[in-house]
Amino acid sequence: LQAYTLLETRHLIEARPKSGFFVRARVADLVPAPKSPAGVQKTMEFTEVDPLDVLLEDRAGARLTPLGLAVPAPDLLPGVKLARTLAAVARKLGPSGAAYDEAAGAEALRTEIARRSLQWGCALKPDDLVITVGATEALSLALRAVCQPGDSIVVEAPTYFGITRMAHDLGLRALPVVVDSDHGIDVEALKKTLRDHRVAACVLTPNFHNPVGFAMADERKKHVIEMLSRRRVPLIEDDVYGDLPHAGPRPRCMKAFDASDSVILCGSYSKTLAPGYRIGYIAAGRWRKAVLDLKRSASLSGPLLLNLAAAEFLRNGGYDRYLRHVRQIYGEQIARMKEAVVDCFPKGIRLSRPRGGFLLWCELPPAVDSIKLFHSARAAGISIAPGPLFCPRGGFRHFIRLNCGQTWNAQMERSIGILGHLARKIEKS
Amino acid sequence: LQAYTLLETRHLIEARPKSGFFVRARVADLVPAPKSPAGVQKTMEFTEVDPLDVLLEDRAGARLTPLGLAVPAPDLLPGVKLARTLAAVARKLGPSGAAYDEAAGAEALRTEIARRSLQWGCALKPDDLVITVGATEALSLALRAVCQPGDSIVVEAPTYFGITRMAHDLGLRALPVVVDSDHGIDVEALKKTLRDHRVAACVLTPNFHNPVGFAMADERKKHVIEMLSRRRVPLIEDDVYGDLPHAGPRPRCMKAFDASDSVILCGSYSKTLAPGYRIGYIAAGRWRKAVLDLKRSASLSGPLLLNLAAAEFLRNGGYDRYLRHVRQIYGEQIARMKEAVVDCFPKGIRLSRPRGGFLLWCELPPAVDSIKLFHSARAAGISIAPGPLFCPRGGFRHFIRLNCGQTWNAQMERSIGILGHLARKIEKS
Repeated sequence: LQAYTLLETRHLIEARPKSGFFVRARVADLVPAPKSPAGVQKTMEFTEVDPLDVLLEDRAGARLTPLGLAVPAPDLLPGVKLARTLAAVARKLGPSGAAYDEAAGAEALRTEIARRSLQWGCALKPDDLVITVGATEALSLALRAVCQPGDSIVVEAPTYFGITRMAHDLGLRALPVVVDSDHGIDVEALKKTLRDHRVAACVLTPNFHNPVGFAMADERKKHVIEMLSRRRVPLIEDDVYGDLPHAGPRPRCMKAFDASDSVILCGSYSKTLAPGYRIGYIAAGRWRKAVLDLKRSASLSGPLLLNLAAAEFLRNGGYDRYLRHVRQIYGEQIARMKEAVVDCFPKGIRLSRPRGGFLLWCELPPAVDSIKLFHSARAAGISIAPGPLFCPRGGFRHFIRLNCGQTWNAQMERSIGILGHLARKIEKS
Repeated sequence: LQAYTLLETRHLIEARPKSGFFVRARVADLVPAPKSPAGVQKTMEFTEVDPLDVLLEDRAGARLTPLGLAVPAPDLLPGVKLARTLAAVARKLGPSGAAYDEAAGAEALRTEIARRSLQWGCALKPDDLVITVGATEALSLALRAVCQPGDSIVVEAPTYFGITRMAHDLGLRALPVVVDSDHGIDVEALKKTLRDHRVAACVLTPNFHNPVGFAMADERKKHVIEMLSRRRVPLIEDDVYGDLPHAGPRPRCMKAFDASDSVILCGSYSKTLAPGYRIGYIAAGRWRKAVLDLKRSASLSGPLLLNLAAAEFLRNGGYDRYLRHVRQIYGEQIARMKEAVVDCFPKGIRLSRPRGGFLLWCELPPAVDSIKLFHSARAAGISIAPGPLFCPRGGFRHFIRLNCGQTWNAQMERSIGILGHLARKIEKS
């Protein structure tokens, strides 16, 4: 009976009066996946405030239901255990805990990450890696190493808004190439873009893509790499969600198939360990020296104590234990979110089918303007990420991204109800 | 007698047999200050390895006497106390210690820095500040906010090599303007450069300059600011050593005299608290929004726990207690170093007269090539910083910078003896 109760709590079965327990049909599983609008997207200007500024600045401010930014709930992170490791490391180091780390980052940490890279299919050596201030710095250094201001780069449409901003700040032109919700970048569209433009780099998130959640099949990864390397276009691979499959093995990185040393792999522990520790890494292959030089002049070196605490946590198995625990939770939280969204949102929505990570990409009926929804949701105390942020040229106007990294609770359920109500109001207006 | 013994240990008095104690003549005080070569300097190419790479990479490697990089000895930093504060902060925060900090940096830290800014003559508000990954990131963001690739900037000659590298990495042309060893930037030379070139920014280190150690007088600061603001040239002020006068009050920042909102102030706690905590800050005035956006796309945010630990250390007076203790020590260590250098180095040297910080700038006889000295010293287990690193066009070929941040001991004394021997050998060859 206890097992039944547990399954019921998890919404996996339902009790029907006088009939017993039944496996709950997951209506959400029948919802189709979103479609990226084909072809060129309309340029969008934010006339008033940039919603991204609002979104990013809300983080520390008012207590909004946090469905906007891609952040795990603190209670789902191993923060307390990690802090204990940090205190032990600091005690052990004594005065030298205050010293500069080397620019490439503590060797102990690079050694642990190199060991883990076997799981990604990469077999990196510690000296192949440079530790960075999160994946953000890694991506920024990668772009600076292979591009000059004025160059064009390929990005996915949709893509993580940080990449779009970064391209803008570095004076790069971002060429969006649509992705398939289940399979990743549209290979034909990519081919066409590479043919029509002089491209300095291509930025992809093959594993548990942000915002869509797909994981590219190995065959497709190989195919894309060959296509890029034939044209001598470096690939910058963003792998921040790779450690978070909901089930099954950790997917390989595209760098695992990198025969011509043309992939720069960027990753971090910000989504899996501690966002605020700012620990990322970059395996830049032949651009390693360039990246290290740029790292020195961008931030000199990283926080030694935090780097060493993370190294110890990786070494002693704390990280793996944590991953085993959290992977499934994110899968369940996404399933919950999907059900609530299907229950509450207007008819005709489409939902992504993430196989890892904690993000859900929703296509709303075309009449629902997600920027309007963003503002009215915020006024109602709910933060969401509107679609146009995810493409350098705007578009995705009726899409939103929902963060499922927070523990599911009544507030969350209520918030989805309110969001659905607001979406319907916008649809009818 | 104990007092005499202490003064003797500190080399301030000397015992003369059967005569008593006498105030020790500081021969070093009579040595003239270095002169910056006037006019345009010859471009210098490093044909083989770049000595700066060697210097920076040695940090974590072989056990060299650390006279090269500008680092305090770990035992002169409050690392252990700070780590205790860190552990307490982490315990208090619990799971949320792993969370993202806001992009501008923890408000608690910005509040403490804003309070301290009264001592700099600035009266900043917490919202005027953005926390950065050391002063390195602050300087990089400042340059990116006010310059475009291809622009020219004024730098001091000599200047901190990080600025030269950064300018290069950002595609900026650095125009060196000579400094006077005691008074700072040569005002006439600056005027001429501003007249002859279109200058996008000027980077100065007015307080305890690296490598020379001067502190500009307030009148000169005002004068230079007026000169720059008349020509609408933003000033980027590097104030990393400002908290370290050997005696007397903390000097004011140039930003204190900034009537036209054209000064971007950059500072850090890397030289005074914990290099490895990577805590810097930037007060960018009207460029604040631009800087914050660039910060987001360069590194997103900083290490929350370290920021909060530093805030607490500043708040509870630990930092001020530490400063009172260490300021005088650096003065004494520089005096020791000067004496040893005068004793051991070839005749005809000139030494800077730093009034704060822990760096000594030495002009050797013209025949002593400092790059040669750098390599032979390194082979003998001693790291020094050769002069040509401190100017974008090379030059300062017979200058070296010596780090006096390390506690004076027998190894140090021996190392200066060896350096003098090597310098004489080069002079004669």
